[in-house]
Parts: sequence; structure tokens; C-alpha cells
Amino acid sequence: MLISELIRKKRDGETLDGGEIREFIAGVTAGSVPDYQIAAMLMAVYLRGLEDGELAAWADAMLHSGDVLDLSGIDRPKVDKHSTGGVGDKISLPLAPAVAACGLAVPMVSGRGLGHTGGTLDKLESIPGFNVGLSTKEFVRTVDVVGACIIGQTERIAPADRVLYALRDVTATVESIPLIASSIMSKKLAEGIDGLVLDCKVGAGAFMKERSRATELARALKAIGEAAGKRVTAVLSAMDDPIGRRIGNALEVEEAVAVLRGEGPADTRELVVALGAEMLLCGGACDTAIAGGERIAAALDDGSALDVFRRMVEAQGGDPRVADEPRAVLPRGRSLTAVPAPASGFVAAIAADELGTAALMLGAGRRRKEDQVDPGVGIEIARRLGEEVEAGEPLVYLVHNDRGIEEAAERVLRAYAIGSTLPERASGAASRVLEVMR
Amino acid sequence: MLISELIRKKRDGETLDGGEIREFIAGVTAGSVPDYQIAAMLMAVYLRGLEDGELAAWADAMLHSGDVLDLSGIDRPKVDKHSTGGVGDKISLPLAPAVAACGLAVPMVSGRGLGHTGGTLDKLESIPGFNVGLSTKEFVRTVDVVGACIIGQTERIAPADRVLYALRDVTATVESIPLIASSIMSKKLAEGIDGLVLDCKVGAGAFMKERSRATELARALKAIGEAAGKRVTAVLSAMDDPIGRRIGNALEVEEAVAVLRGEGPADTRELVVALGAEMLLCGGACDTAIAGGERIAAALDDGSALDVFRRMVEAQGGDPRVADEPRAVLPRGRSLTAVPAPASGFVAAIAADELGTAALMLGAGRRRKEDQVDPGVGIEIARRLGEEVEAGEPLVYLVHNDRGIEEAAERVLRAYAIGSTLPERASGAASRVLEVMR
Repeated sequence: MLISELIRKKRDGETLDGGEIREFIAGVTAGSVPDYQIAAMLMAVYLRGLEDGELAAWADAMLHSGDVLDLSGIDRPKVDKHSTGGVGDKISLPLAPAVAACGLAVPMVSGRGLGHTGGTLDKLESIPGFNVGLSTKEFVRTVDVVGACIIGQTERIAPADRVLYALRDVTATVESIPLIASSIMSKKLAEGIDGLVLDCKVGAGAFMKERSRATELARALKAIGEAAGKRVTAVLSAMDDPIGRRIGNALEVEEAVAVLRGEGPADTRELVVALGAEMLLCGGACDTAIAGGERIAAALDDGSALDVFRRMVEAQGGDPRVADEPRAVLPRGRSLTAVPAPASGFVAAIAADELGTAALMLGAGRRRKEDQVDPGVGIEIARRLGEEVEAGEPLVYLVHNDRGIEEAAERVLRAYAIGSTLPERASGAASRVLEVMR
Repeated sequence: MLISELIRKKRDGETLDGGEIREFIAGVTAGSVPDYQIAAMLMAVYLRGLEDGELAAWADAMLHSGDVLDLSGIDRPKVDKHSTGGVGDKISLPLAPAVAACGLAVPMVSGRGLGHTGGTLDKLESIPGFNVGLSTKEFVRTVDVVGACIIGQTERIAPADRVLYALRDVTATVESIPLIASSIMSKKLAEGIDGLVLDCKVGAGAFMKERSRATELARALKAIGEAAGKRVTAVLSAMDDPIGRRIGNALEVEEAVAVLRGEGPADTRELVVALGAEMLLCGGACDTAIAGGERIAAALDDGSALDVFRRMVEAQGGDPRVADEPRAVLPRGRSLTAVPAPASGFVAAIAADELGTAALMLGAGRRRKEDQVDPGVGIEIARRLGEEVEAGEPLVYLVHNDRGIEEAAERVLRAYAIGSTLPERASGAASRVLEVMR
């Protein structure tokens, strides 16, 4: 069939069948469908949507545009977690080892930060020597021997997604639920996993600002995964203020290690326990989320999760002392600058995206894909949501290398709202988990 | 502003302002906006539409992407007609001379045939020597001296339209009212005319199958023209069965000459008189359509229209004897094959598109833009809508050069429906004019 006829069908809201979708995605992968036809199709999909059957076929075609890892040699159930992206989201670092310590295999293919959101790969790379570019063989062996391994996407995973993603960015078709969902799932399903837990962020600091949109995305992600025969659980979690007290690559590793030692901020530990429990459930390693959560908490408290982390870092070429003396090993910006509160009161809101952008200004993140990150810089949060502050006392400390301080401080002040009464939610208290869709 | 932000606005149904539209079209013309962004914008416009203000700005920006003819040296009012395309639509050939004979100037820039619809340029080129590629200077002089001249679009007229048109064809964004309307009007307004009559075809053989869509297109065309300060009248006319009794280039010239001699099929003459009357009204040459129609009819009957035609052909390098002895001058396929009626009864329907395609099979038209046409071939209709036929009697005669006869005959049989009762409408009787929107 002519590609223009496929575009017409989608334009008119008709349903594309599996063969038509496979033909289109195969043409995208092979380069035989020109960019302008892909762009027209993307806009038609953006405005007309994809039905469940189309969505599953679309994601499946993207998945099979490249290699699918064969982890059949690993006996244990294989589960992974994916987050739609947040600020201060260092959850994968303690989570993967904790779940592995509970007996499952965690083959995690992760991403880099862009804009105000950080990326797991950048955080790991702040550990001296850490290599996120293992070969497939090394990856599989590390998952098998250590239980967890975290690497970056290879060129051979879902190549159709790279073509579509680059075009979506310049054709205003990024914010489409079916396109986002198929992009995520085509890469995650290529890991050869049995189950997947999705951390769908909702709120001012998240890609999905509204709960209804996040729910819609969660449904689409589950539909794709379940059509592919996987167990998929979606967790909706709040991303209004940043997770934990640290933003920035090495700073977040430090906080992740604290969680792995049974310490760390309560909200960070809560997410690790809640998401870990769902991963154990998906992998059939427990019968209830409560039982799963207890096992994860135990793994954090008894040092077994930290032990897996130490071995994972070592297997991936990193300095394993990071697990015991993170401050001695990790890079750190040479200067510390406090940003004082302009007024006295309670912290009524912290806009995560503004604070993420403040860290970006210091060099912790990327404006464009090709930018380099400065691993040692970032933000230490002195006053969290609901905490009281006197005018002139520090809201945050900027950890920096004398770059972007003024812009960052300005962003910090934009991020904070100081009020006269206690806000409904406090970072340290209320749960970040809004909903679990099993 | 970023082009992707303009696409986003249109995608979300927001209104683009004049500056944004000019920026986009200027980028299209200059080649600085890549095809994939144009394609995404076209699909967004297709699905979201353009408001009246946007539409006028879009067409104006396309118009000014190229040259606008300066006909200010010609004193008489300058009017033109545009048809959205039909089968057997040779109306421009007698119409332009007839209107010129009534004192107006008719600077007509016309197109070629594609698919089942014919093109005025192809018809004129069947006249030996006729040149549709005059320079701008020759064109202006011929309009001034003779009163009418018909040429093809030059490279310098509305270049943005060529870029958009080529992309629309392959991105399933052809059938969009605002894109069709701005494409037509950007080219027509480049002629430097004062008034324009639009023949919007409706029916099975037309681009617009439904009356409501044709009305919508007519409104958009009028809105653009009026925003540009022109007098614009839209005529909705029936295009179910073919116009007249001839389909094919030289065959249609022959029929046009008949009309110019005060003869020819009644429906063909009616369209010339009705459209001519509206052109005279637009040009201020009469006060009522009835008075205008009488003048056009007189010009056809007294030989003055034929005289302008003869001089126009001569001025454009063609053999002027075509006006007096068309059969002696025009090429004609060497063979004649009758297609007999499969049953007895009344002709209940003739699908114009099928009959147009039959002529295309004989070589009268183009499947693709780059195809050559055979000027002498086509169809002579023996039985029109509402006429009675006995089984075995000819429905049509194929005029051909021994190419495509079987496929053409098959299409003819598909085009004809034979019934036992008289249909509501007969080609020779009821008016083709459905509505006039002044």
C-alpha cells in the first residue's frame, strides 16, 4: 500500500491494521519512507490518536526494528523499572540493587538527562571509572552474576524510535500519549524482561502536569506491555517538589548510597520500597505488596542491597569504595553558595522544574543533547516543603564550580513559595505514591 | 519564533497571526523550513483548519512569495474565471473570448490535466502552433490588444504553492479546504485581476463530491479574494455527467468552436453564458446577470466572440483557421470504435470520472504529471443523460490511435447506468448552475 494512503487513513481517524503499521515502521527503519511522510503521519497520530490494537502493533513494530536481548540464559525472573522523568529522581540507583538482593534479575537500560530532568546514566558516570557502555555479552553476564546492571541504549535497540524521536522534537509531536508510550515500551521490551514497573510522574516538575494525562499514559504503557505478554504495573507518583534533598549527579549518588545504607530522606526510601515491592510482585517473588515492601526495606537495612550495588559498580568498572565512602570518591564542586530566604514563613511550594533548571544552570544538566555535564555540581536542599524558614536563612546551597551561580540563584527564588501557614503536603511526611495500577 | 512552536500552535487549534504565517511561508519559499516541518504543519492545518483571518494571511503570503503581474497599463477591468476541474470542461475556450468581446480584459493563467480531469492548456496545445508559454510582456500585450490570452503558470508565480503542492500530494493533505483555496487564490491573485468568477464543481465527477464541501470551498475562495480587495463570485455547478458531448483535447476544441459559432450543446453554452454574465458583473460591465447573459449570448451568436478567439489563437502562434474549419486543422485519432449499450432503456447516469478515465486510457490525459497527452484522441458521446438507447446501439464512440481501447470500453460501460424510466435530470435540459454566491 502507498504510504500516503496509510497517512490518509490515520488522518481520517480510520484504524490501521498490523500489516500496515509494520510496513510503515519498516519503511521508517529502512529509510525508504521520507521524513516529510513520517512527519505527516506523526501529526495525524498526534491529533487522531491510536486505538489499543494499533498502539500495541506500533510499539511491537518499533521493538522489532532492532535487536531484542536474549536473557533466557538467566533463570531468575527479570524485571525492570522505568520512570517518566523527575527532578532528584535517583531511585534506580538503590532500587535495582535492592530488588536484585531479593532474588530477581534487573537488566536496566537507562537514559541521559535533558532539560530540567536528570538521567540515571549521568549519575552513574559521576562514579570514577563507571562504564555504562558494556557490550551485550558483558551486560548479560553482569545481570546473571551480580543480579543488576545499568547501561545505556545501544544503536541496535529500537532504531525506528531514534528516527521518530528526532522528528517529533522538531514537528511539535512530542506530547502525544501513544507516541510517548510506544517510544518507552519499544526500548523497555527490547531488554527481554518478564515484568516492568512504570513510575509515571505527575505534577509541575513532570512531563505530565495533570493526573488525568498521567493516568492516560499509564494505561497506554500497560496496554502495550500486556499485549506483549508482560506483567506491567504503573505507579503514579507526585513530582511537584524534588525527590530527596539532593539534585545533581554525584550529589544524587551520595543520597542513593545513604538510602542503600538504610538512611536517606523518607520520601526517597518510600519510593524505593514501593516501586521495589511492585517489581517483586511482577516477578512473582512475593504475594502481596506489603510483603514485598518488607523484603525491600530489609534489603536496605541489612546491607544486602548495598552489597549488590558495590558489586555492580565494580563489575561496571567503577570505584566500589563509593558504596562505603562516597564523599572520598565522588567529584564535588569546589564552592558552596547559600541562597537565602527572602522572607520568613513555611515553604509552601518548591517547583521541581525550576529547581531542576537551577541545577542545569550550574552545569549539572544539558540544554541540548550534545552538552557535557559537570558531575560534581548541583543543589543541596536546606528547607523542604512544609519546613519553616527565617528570612536570610538558606533555602538551598548551590554546589558549584563558579559557573551560572546568579542565574541558578534566581531560579531557586522562583522555585520557592514562602507562605504563612503549613502547606497540605510536606516533603518529609505525605506519601509520593498517588496510585498503583496493577 | 521557532517553526516548531508555530506548528504547535496550529496543532493545538490556536490562531496564527499574520506575522507568524508570513514567517512560515517565507521559510517555505526560501527553503529554510525543512520538508518535515512543512509536512507536519500541513497535517495540522488539514485537521485543525484555518480561520478566515489566517486563511487570508496564508494566501496573501503565498501570493507574495512570487511575482504579481502588473496589468495597470490596461484600462479595461480585468477579470478571470477559475474552475475547480471537471470532465469535458472546455468552458474557458469560448468564455475568455466572449467576455473580451463584451469589452473586458481576460488575463487567464491556466493549468494542465491530471487524472480524469482535463486541462485548458492541453486543449489549446492541440491547436497546431499554439504557444501557452508566452513571456509576461507578450501576455500583457496580447491581453491589451486582443482582450484575452491564456497561458500556463510561470516559475515565478507563487513559488511557495509549488513546494506545498508537491508535499500535499505525498502527505495526504490534498483535500483540505483552506489549503486548496489558498493554492488556487495565490495563483489567481498573481494575475493582477480586479474580479474573479469561480466555477466550483460538485458531484461524482468533481473533486468535491458533496454540495456542502463545495459550498465551504466557495466560501473560503471568496473570503480570500475579498480580503485582497477583489470582487469574487462563486458559482456552484453540477459535475455528475460530463459537460457537452466531447471529451479529449482536440475534440473539446472542436466543441468549443461550435459554441463560439452560436451552436454546440445547450449545457455547454449555458455555462459560458452564466459564467460570462458573472464575469461582466464582477468587472462592472453590466448591472444584472440577466443583462450580462444577454450580452454574452449575443457575442456568441454574432461572431464577435469567435473573432476574438481567432485573433487570440493567432497572437499565440496557433493556426487561426481552427476558428472556421476546426476539422481541417485539428489532429484526430485515426480510428473510431463504438461502445454498444449492453441493454435497452434510458441513460440513468453517466459517471463523469469514469468517462474521464476512459479518455485517459486512450491517451487524452495524464496518470502522472510527466506523461504526454495524445491530442487527437478522446470520446464522442452518442447518448447523453436521459436519452433512450436500444441494446447494441452506441453509447459513445472512442476516437483513438489503437491504444487502450479495451480498458477504455470497460470504463465506459462502468460509467453508464441504463434504467427503465427517465432520470430526474437530463443533460440537455436542466441547468448545471446550482447556486450563485456573489
